[in-house]
Amino acid sequence: EQIKKVVDNVHGGVGGVVMGLDGIPVDKYMVESKLDLSTIGIEFSYILGQARRASETLQIGDIGEFSIKAEQLTMVIRMLTDEYFMAVVLSADGNFGKCRFLMRIVAPDIIAELV
Amino acid sequence: EQIKKVVDNVHGGVGGVVMGLDGIPVDKYMVESKLDLSTIGIEFSYILGQARRASETLQIGDIGEFSIKAEQLTMVIRMLTDEYFMAVVLSADGNFGKCRFLMRIVAPDIIAELV
Repeated sequence: EQIKKVVDNVHGGVGGVVMGLDGIPVDKYMVESKLDLSTIGIEFSYILGQARRASETLQIGDIGEFSIKAEQLTMVIRMLTDEYFMAVVLSADGNFGKCRFLMRIVAPDIIAELV
Repeated sequence: EQIKKVVDNVHGGVGGVVMGLDGIPVDKYMVESKLDLSTIGIEFSYILGQARRASETLQIGDIGEFSIKAEQLTMVIRMLTDEYFMAVVLSADGNFGKCRFLMRIVAPDIIAELV
């Protein structure tokens, strides 16, 4: 499955989720179970919604990617459709660039399953 | 000056600003004047504030970096102190990785000027 393909092939990959902007997960995959991925997803789906509204106000076009690097983890979010996004969580020293690359690669397959 | 050093040395660099989380700019540098960098900064300082509150709730540590890729531009934000951040705007095809790298390099000098 596509989320696993990203998480398992990135150094520091912890977990991933495909989620609606309403915070409801479609599917998820975790390497470690310490993190509450759903809670993280819900918090950031809200922030993503705000960023989307800001991009409308600023007329800079739709947001395709969004990432946050905190002390304890890095999160990369990629919009899949207008309603769904994919979020992958890495450890703080995880390979951010490869994560972005792999998410771009698997996105079409996930989108095909969503619609 | 340090913002210029980043913007001029990154492919697609459009402008940069050092700003407080309250949305008040300390200094800015623009290559093109089409963009209203202050308005963009204000919108995203608000979102950054929300992301910081979320990271507290989730106990994932302070946010160090934050980036958004929209259709028409990419923005990379780096926290400098608890109150100030640096935001650099690139064209959509700008060199995201090099921008992050250069921002990390100049950050200590900007922080030294802020405190």
